[in-house]
Amino acid sequence: MQWYTPVPTAATGLSCRGCGGTYPRTYMLDCPACHSLLQVEYDLEALAALRPGDLRGDTLWRYAPFLPIGDPRHFISLGEGLTPLLRLPRLGQRLGLRHLYLKFEGTNPTGTVKDRSTATAIAAAQEFGFNAVAVVSTGNAGSSIAAYGARAGLKTFVFCYARAAQPKMHHMAACASHLILYRGGYDDLIRIYDRLMEEMPIFEAGASRSTYKMEGKKTIAYETFEQLGNQAPDYFVAPVAVGETFIAAWRAFNELFAIGWAGKVPTMVAAQSSEANPIVEALRDGGPIRPRPIGYTIAEGTAVGNPERKGEWALQILREGKGLAADASDPEVLEAQALLARTEGMWAGPTGCVPLAALRKLVTQQALDPDAVIVCVASESGLKGEYAPVEREAIEPDEAHLRAILREGLAAG
Amino acid sequence: MQWYTPVPTAATGLSCRGCGGTYPRTYMLDCPACHSLLQVEYDLEALAALRPGDLRGDTLWRYAPFLPIGDPRHFISLGEGLTPLLRLPRLGQRLGLRHLYLKFEGTNPTGTVKDRSTATAIAAAQEFGFNAVAVVSTGNAGSSIAAYGARAGLKTFVFCYARAAQPKMHHMAACASHLILYRGGYDDLIRIYDRLMEEMPIFEAGASRSTYKMEGKKTIAYETFEQLGNQAPDYFVAPVAVGETFIAAWRAFNELFAIGWAGKVPTMVAAQSSEANPIVEALRDGGPIRPRPIGYTIAEGTAVGNPERKGEWALQILREGKGLAADASDPEVLEAQALLARTEGMWAGPTGCVPLAALRKLVTQQALDPDAVIVCVASESGLKGEYAPVEREAIEPDEAHLRAILREGLAAG
Repeated sequence: MQWYTPVPTAATGLSCRGCGGTYPRTYMLDCPACHSLLQVEYDLEALAALRPGDLRGDTLWRYAPFLPIGDPRHFISLGEGLTPLLRLPRLGQRLGLRHLYLKFEGTNPTGTVKDRSTATAIAAAQEFGFNAVAVVSTGNAGSSIAAYGARAGLKTFVFCYARAAQPKMHHMAACASHLILYRGGYDDLIRIYDRLMEEMPIFEAGASRSTYKMEGKKTIAYETFEQLGNQAPDYFVAPVAVGETFIAAWRAFNELFAIGWAGKVPTMVAAQSSEANPIVEALRDGGPIRPRPIGYTIAEGTAVGNPERKGEWALQILREGKGLAADASDPEVLEAQALLARTEGMWAGPTGCVPLAALRKLVTQQALDPDAVIVCVASESGLKGEYAPVEREAIEPDEAHLRAILREGLAAG
Repeated sequence: MQWYTPVPTAATGLSCRGCGGTYPRTYMLDCPACHSLLQVEYDLEALAALRPGDLRGDTLWRYAPFLPIGDPRHFISLGEGLTPLLRLPRLGQRLGLRHLYLKFEGTNPTGTVKDRSTATAIAAAQEFGFNAVAVVSTGNAGSSIAAYGARAGLKTFVFCYARAAQPKMHHMAACASHLILYRGGYDDLIRIYDRLMEEMPIFEAGASRSTYKMEGKKTIAYETFEQLGNQAPDYFVAPVAVGETFIAAWRAFNELFAIGWAGKVPTMVAAQSSEANPIVEALRDGGPIRPRPIGYTIAEGTAVGNPERKGEWALQILREGKGLAADASDPEVLEAQALLARTEGMWAGPTGCVPLAALRKLVTQQALDPDAVIVCVASESGLKGEYAPVEREAIEPDEAHLRAILREGLAAG
């Protein structure tokens, strides 16, 4: 809660996931030699010299040594991070899980986990001298980039698909300097967009390639570790659209293990919508990811049929770490949403309930140890969603009628 | 972020604001002798023995010694509190204010400041052995009570006016065990409801009388104090519907002053909607509050024309402390909302923007010192609101067209 001096970043540069080439910490969308994805490298010895008690502050910049931004003047914040990790005793009992936790990302400033990656994206845009940022979004990333872009005084080009939920649309329209609605889905636009980002002086803040952006999402894992009393969970259930949250959490848990803070790396569990499940299919059937055309899903944020190179990375993590994956249909997602609300009082959006719905399937398949510590990500607030109107008759304020309603309610089981 | 042992409550009992009678810490809706409002009393010497560094934890229960709940098993939480206090440099410059801060309550679990009072209300309901709670709400309090009631496994009777925004309605319908929609406004139902609460075994969790509930809202002031580096601000701008947040913040700042933590009590500033402004009118015109019938306002949470005894208390605070008050029309509220989004990236709901809109009026009237430290409450997330659909034409994903849009945007001012 107090003013503090941040611990400096331990980032040393970038490395290529393909050819292994190394580069300084500059703005690059992929490897100049082989066009593979780049990742940020850190001085693990410097990190290992730290202790959890050295971390200070109540935003995502608490984890500054693990993040790729050098100059604290670029530590932009709207108060993201330090979201609740809630134990779910009632829901756990229903599912037969003894140590079930929800990492609820709805309390971030724009209501989703995106604020974590946006914070490091906009910080990097400032660090590398950009005046404009752009993103392709189904709504959540767009709201977040628009908000943090406004906070930093940057121009924001937000490309949003025209079917996005109205609450997200309003949010973007209020914060973005340029909101562009497009027909079709993410997969229809992304290749055109990627080419334009190569030629324009605009910081690309999308999930598919951005190196610096993804780093912010690592903080979901550091927080989980701290909130469990400096322990890693046994399972970490995360949504996979492009794969950003999933890969970032895995990277963070591996860092914590490598520097000796955590005694293990959790088993990673990938959750997808049944309408957009190429990674679940690839893990089940073997072989590479087969991109698929996708239909509409109420879990808007998961509507990616071709997760490209980050999807391949996520699949590799699953295969090498003996991870699990499951998908959930729209009705299963809505059922998980209602169950979470009624048993624990948490109101998460459909996109945010894909992991819980997928977890329920894995429990049915007896794929998880019921005594394990399981952390399930809920990536967005229920307030981000758009639903059919509540159909319920309104009554007149009549004392006798209200008394009868209360008596009946009190008497009922 | 860590597990911690809370400091025990310093609450000693209740006192009557009318006759001065004192009572033990039990469930009472008002004074049995004179029917005036009750308030919780604390052992200020015990509190004065504490230092800010003694506070632990990352929910509202960090402030347990200042709250009226004895048994830590009743410390219910969905991760409320520790909301961001954001400095607003761009907006401050626009308004000519050098030290303007926003206390953004939209990052609470249900998206509003209500979660603070709900936490102590539901905790008290458990402490006093209730199995059911009730509330009359325009939406925000109802969502919050429904959520925390579900978390505690209590029955929840939520009376909500039928015109509440759909996002709030969905939230309540998902979490409440009993959601009852009624025709008319808060003022039409509240007297009937108050009588029913006297006769039923239901914990009354409404704002008009509840003693324990209001205490949770004090935490907005303790946090502000901590986030300013253990200092009270010069002005604290809070919304007044029934007056709960306003009174609670004033009580908390007075406690901090009384125990020697704070060097001053801020000048309190009351903000109301022009559609429901009886306290602004009474302060301007002198004399008592004249209840008024009210029309619809987009700032739903402020739609109270007769704030009753808590309103009188708020007026007394304003008069005795030389406080300020201002109201804002719906267009002024929407203008403040858009300004906040565009200049600082914060998306607050209409109810939440009443204080900022009122502050702008007071600045125009030169009623505040522009060099002062001013904290303005934004009580809800913008995601709680319902707005007209965004009218914007969607384009085809065509490379040349998109390139032209980006070039034009980059070239523009």
